[in-house]
Amino acid sequence: MKRIDGRNFDALREIRVTRDFVPSAPGSVLIEWGRTRVICTATVEDRVPPFLVNTGRGWLSAEYGMLPGSTDRRKPRDGRRGPIDGRTVEIQRLVGRNLRNLVRLDRIGPRTIWIDCDVVEADGGTRTASINGAWIALADCLEDLRERKLIKADALVGGVAAVSVGIIEGAPYLDLCYEEDARAEADVNFVMTHDGRLVEIQGGAEGRPLEKAQFDACWDLAAGAVPRIAEIQHRTREGERFA
Amino acid sequence: MKRIDGRNFDALREIRVTRDFVPSAPGSVLIEWGRTRVICTATVEDRVPPFLVNTGRGWLSAEYGMLPGSTDRRKPRDGRRGPIDGRTVEIQRLVGRNLRNLVRLDRIGPRTIWIDCDVVEADGGTRTASINGAWIALADCLEDLRERKLIKADALVGGVAAVSVGIIEGAPYLDLCYEEDARAEADVNFVMTHDGRLVEIQGGAEGRPLEKAQFDACWDLAAGAVPRIAEIQHRTREGERFA
Amino acid sequence: MKRIDGRNFDALREIRVTRDFVPSAPGSVLIEWGRTRVICTATVEDRVPPFLVNTGRGWLSAEYGMLPGSTDRRKPRDGRRGPIDGRTVEIQRLVGRNLRNLVRLDRIGPRTIWIDCDVVEADGGTRTASINGAWIALADCLEDLRERKLIKADALVGGVAAVSVGIIEGAPYLDLCYEEDARAEADVNFVMTHDGRLVEIQGGAEGRPLEKAQFDACWDLAAGAVPRIAEIQHRTREGERFA
Amino acid sequence: MKRIDGRNFDALREIRVTRDFVPSAPGSVLIEWGRTRVICTATVEDRVPPFLVNTGRGWLSAEYGMLPGSTDRRKPRDGRRGPIDGRTVEIQRLVGRNLRNLVRLDRIGPRTIWIDCDVVEADGGTRTASINGAWIALADCLEDLRERKLIKADALVGGVAAVSVGIIEGAPYLDLCYEEDARAEADVNFVMTHDGRLVEIQGGAEGRPLEKAQFDACWDLAAGAVPRIAEIQHRTREGERFA
Amino acid sequence: MKRIDGRNFDALREIRVTRDFVPSAPGSVLIEWGRTRVICTATVEDRVPPFLVNTGRGWLSAEYGMLPGSTDRRKPRDGRRGPIDGRTVEIQRLVGRNLRNLVRLDRIGPRTIWIDCDVVEADGGTRTASINGAWIALADCLEDLRERKLIKADALVGGVAAVSVGIIEGAPYLDLCYEEDARAEADVNFVMTHDGRLVEIQGGAEGRPLEKAQFDACWDLAAGAVPRIAEIQHRTREGERFA
Amino acid sequence: MKRIDGRNFDALREIRVTRDFVPSAPGSVLIEWGRTRVICTATVEDRVPPFLVNTGRGWLSAEYGMLPGSTDRRKPRDGRRGPIDGRTVEIQRLVGRNLRNLVRLDRIGPRTIWIDCDVVEADGGTRTASINGAWIALADCLEDLRERKLIKADALVGGVAAVSVGIIEGAPYLDLCYEEDARAEADVNFVMTHDGRLVEIQGGAEGRPLEKAQFDACWDLAAGAVPRIAEIQHRTREGERFA
Repeated sequence: MKRIDGRNFDALREIRVTRDFVPSAPGSVLIEWGRTRVICTATVEDRVPPFLVNTGRGWLSAEYGMLPGSTDRRKPRDGRRGPIDGRTVEIQRLVGRNLRNLVRLDRIGPRTIWIDCDVVEADGGTRTASINGAWIALADCLEDLRERKLIKADALVGGVAAVSVGIIEGAPYLDLCYEEDARAEADVNFVMTHDGRLVEIQGGAEGRPLEKAQFDACWDLAAGAVPRIAEIQHRTREGERFA
Repeated sequence: MKRIDGRNFDALREIRVTRDFVPSAPGSVLIEWGRTRVICTATVEDRVPPFLVNTGRGWLSAEYGMLPGSTDRRKPRDGRRGPIDGRTVEIQRLVGRNLRNLVRLDRIGPRTIWIDCDVVEADGGTRTASINGAWIALADCLEDLRERKLIKADALVGGVAAVSVGIIEGAPYLDLCYEEDARAEADVNFVMTHDGRLVEIQGGAEGRPLEKAQFDACWDLAAGAVPRIAEIQHRTREGERFA
Repeated sequence: MKRIDGRNFDALREIRVTRDFVPSAPGSVLIEWGRTRVICTATVEDRVPPFLVNTGRGWLSAEYGMLPGSTDRRKPRDGRRGPIDGRTVEIQRLVGRNLRNLVRLDRIGPRTIWIDCDVVEADGGTRTASINGAWIALADCLEDLRERKLIKADALVGGVAAVSVGIIEGAPYLDLCYEEDARAEADVNFVMTHDGRLVEIQGGAEGRPLEKAQFDACWDLAAGAVPRIAEIQHRTREGERFA
Repeated sequence: MKRIDGRNFDALREIRVTRDFVPSAPGSVLIEWGRTRVICTATVEDRVPPFLVNTGRGWLSAEYGMLPGSTDRRKPRDGRRGPIDGRTVEIQRLVGRNLRNLVRLDRIGPRTIWIDCDVVEADGGTRTASINGAWIALADCLEDLRERKLIKADALVGGVAAVSVGIIEGAPYLDLCYEEDARAEADVNFVMTHDGRLVEIQGGAEGRPLEKAQFDACWDLAAGAVPRIAEIQHRTREGERFA
Repeated sequence: MKRIDGRNFDALREIRVTRDFVPSAPGSVLIEWGRTRVICTATVEDRVPPFLVNTGRGWLSAEYGMLPGSTDRRKPRDGRRGPIDGRTVEIQRLVGRNLRNLVRLDRIGPRTIWIDCDVVEADGGTRTASINGAWIALADCLEDLRERKLIKADALVGGVAAVSVGIIEGAPYLDLCYEEDARAEADVNFVMTHDGRLVEIQGGAEGRPLEKAQFDACWDLAAGAVPRIAEIQHRTREGERFA
Repeated sequence: MKRIDGRNFDALREIRVTRDFVPSAPGSVLIEWGRTRVICTATVEDRVPPFLVNTGRGWLSAEYGMLPGSTDRRKPRDGRRGPIDGRTVEIQRLVGRNLRNLVRLDRIGPRTIWIDCDVVEADGGTRTASINGAWIALADCLEDLRERKLIKADALVGGVAAVSVGIIEGAPYLDLCYEEDARAEADVNFVMTHDGRLVEIQGGAEGRPLEKAQFDACWDLAAGAVPRIAEIQHRTREGERFA
């Protein structure tokens, strides 16, 4: 199968990252992943949720949103009318869990780090792009806290990257765009450490259930892509601009 | 490691299913999975969501809830004060996706099948118990529609079962209870077809990232348990009572 | 008039009570009142509403809910979409007022006792069954607090039972089931102390206004039934199982 | 016991009714019941709730609210923050049921009659004053519909009046003001037809349970007051102004 | 152009003010402005919003509401179903800002003064009538606090009055009623100090944009009316009743 | 007074506009107004609000939001917890009214044009920047509808631009940034047609009331700036990029 944009089955989309896209936030990026674009910010609030008050520990919380113009058909804002979309809840919990897991909450004091991922344009893979961009914003934010002497020790304990793999006509493809995703029989999102171990997995086969061998092929594609994403994350933080 | 209840690492908890637990619903069970107990009902509403009006197709929607007394610390009812819990949203979407996927929506007419899973007591594994019990309720409900000549052809296209596998001190264990789950480094929920292929997977390693070999061990445990669950589901529908 | 289920005009429906139905709660029953079935739990939260903070007094609060499959037509969950049903509010206030009235709030410390009544199946009389079952759960819960030395003195100051009486074709009938209720000209709910004095009354004559003589006949039927209910409540607590 | 305002035990408070207090509404009164003052309006909306669409029948719905300044301590507006107060729900359901019961819904066409009761000042008895005032507004509104030839036949099928009776130190007193109510052992609200039969009753004995004889004394006081209230309602509609 | 009610282009509608209309509130008026009638109360709550806790300063907050019967077509209550009306939010913010600006918040202690404006009947100009009436209620409320020795010094630092001016067929008219407003090309609300300086302005030209000269004519009409309103406000507080 | 960024008292901040910033929307810009940055999109929905169904007319609706990282202190998302911020409601109504006023709603068919303004970074003037950017997005969107032959005639009937003027130490300054705004005694927002007539005005003097002469100076500054803004709006649409 020839891919829509001519990519190889194991190729990522073109990635661009603009660091410090929102100067008012201590950590921020605009991550462009093919046509998918997400603004990720990391900000700090000087209080913690009720269950952590007086424990000395901090927290990390994530929220996800889509700008109304980000999809072909206008996406109503979550929470303006009726309840928050279930998909939104699912994604922001995914982002929150995986980044919180990387922070030494005992080292950041009674603060909440907020990760906000706002999708400017959606062409598939917004949750994985959100994680990838948010990790950079988080790392910048924690470094900012340290530079300002608000925290003493490094609070970041590792790196994560995320990518989706889909099955189309029985074969695995890395990093599906929206049009591919709509045709896919299955789609699995992998969140992995920078050294390729699994942190979280979410996937489903709405079309055709997956054999173990197919699943293994998906895993291999994801594990192969993670180091490339990690490199982009690190080089962005070192000041390189991807375009 | 010796398990809390003396089970083998690859053993399911004791399972009991009371069919037709809620006679007012066309399909219902009380499923008892160790100390975890869930009431699952399948009911029919004669209308469809807005996006399906005039298409002739039906829909399946799921809701999940925990009775306030189901946990050691009272669980406030979702939606009574503040928004619905994110975990609730996540679970009911999981249940809904996987059962909807099994129904020929073009064969049930302009109806919505509601799957409701209400947890009477929670001791870990409520989402997998919900799926396992709800499949029975769904199958009974669809059969009832057919017996009452409201639908012509069989609308159920397959069977699913679900089970969790966790990693404790590096080793995989099938079907964790709450106390085990609290100690686990990782926990993966598998939803599989009755013949052992993957339909959906959700898992995370909050403690220690998973190596591929560990993940494979989890898969094997799950794949080994699914036929046993499927047999209980089928035998329940044939009238057998498990106790 | 012959009653649907052949009962005498002054007979209660068949009653079954399963004590400790929800082992995770310090007090709980499944009360089956004819086909009406309600799970009642009593649980303890270690804090009080804002207006009682620092008073040393406790509180009792009740919530009522119907499982979606409990009625012939699926009952949407309260609070999931739109506001909570007015009938739900009315019933849970009734339950809360009458049980709170029985607790020495100055003896339970800064705790809230939560009474939760969840209807598994509804065939009329869910509010009276809820009160009858909840009293048992409450008594068990307070005893548990005392056994665990969390409270010193007995905090329960009395017993209540509740029953409805309806007027059909001008004549009074005790304890209406749903089908009878739908035909009734009037329906009055009596909450009485175990010795037959009135604690609360709620009743309406949507069909035909009530003469005083008719009302007196209703009172007599209720007063005659209360000792029978009280006996079941007490014997349940002494360990007897009704079936 | 001498009453606070010197009234006899069986005396109503001073009552004043200003008809057409809100000229923009087809029926309206300001009812002043001692210091309790309520604005009641009856208005017409040309549509019905979903369950009545295409039935040709109409509906009546009631809402109750307290102006924030109506109580000594400011009463927050219902629904502005958090859910609607349970007491509000209870009262507006009471008002709605009892007035709806008096309207031939098959004669008003596909319209909803809205009864709105807004308390300007609260000194006890707001729910009974609301019913008494709303009946006048309703009757005026239905007459207006008939005069404008929008409905053909009289749609009002009777009259109701409401009054509370309380027990203080064992003895019954008619129509308690707030300060009396706070001291009462029991308080029962009677809604009766103009000829003295019971339509709805709501009452509770938070202090001391009621003997039947006490209850009977309450009934007698209420039944004695209803004709006096009915006369005021009728004379108001004939144009008399009470002051 | 002859005005509907025969007024001169620069004349205010007939104004009546009933002081202490709600005796339970420390400050209150019923202000009648032509057919527009608004109940304004000023009450005191002994706490402040979170951002002022422990600052020693107080706050002033305003809420606005329309009784359902106040308009020809029933106005649904804000917040009962769905979100609060945007117009309501806009008006209550306007009222709140302008009255808060007149209070020395450092002199009232940790208290919130609530201004509530409830429209009994709406015939245009409800926001300006609300401000005019609320100022009287506020002044009475602050005086009450001082008389009760709860505050030491005068906390009111000035007077405001508000009035609208509209353009109809190119010419300016003072204080439009609803019917005039519906025909107006532009409508500007002026809030001014009693000595005629501008405190807040809100205006729009939905029909035809305004030339500067037209705007100046509006300003002049407003500035000419403000002293007349101020006089009514002051004389009301001195005990005069306008009718 | 020397301005923070060295601007002349009558100078606008540096303005950059990126057209088609969100390619999925038929009209969109990123407008950068000094450090204030707003994404404005115009999208089309093929339905209208209930009150316009079957009238053949269309509608225009606007929503405004601030990304959480857009302010120094994280701005919680509107509607996620609690009600929507009053300021948000006020701004989106302002944007909606003024752009709706420019569209021939009878020429766009039964469609709703949605204007969404999302603030990426806030440094004062977000509401005026929103209007200025949204006008471009709206014009592009209407042109797109015409090019796709969905509407026949030009539906845009004019141009608007908006700018604020503030008074600091008695003197007027054009287009305040956040730091200036915080020090200002008064701040007035002018929305004007491209030829300098007033469409809407909103302003307040929280510090010191405005004399008429001061107000006139504000008007003059605004009227002088509008042609400059209009030129940028037009040149952006002709393809010029401002940087």
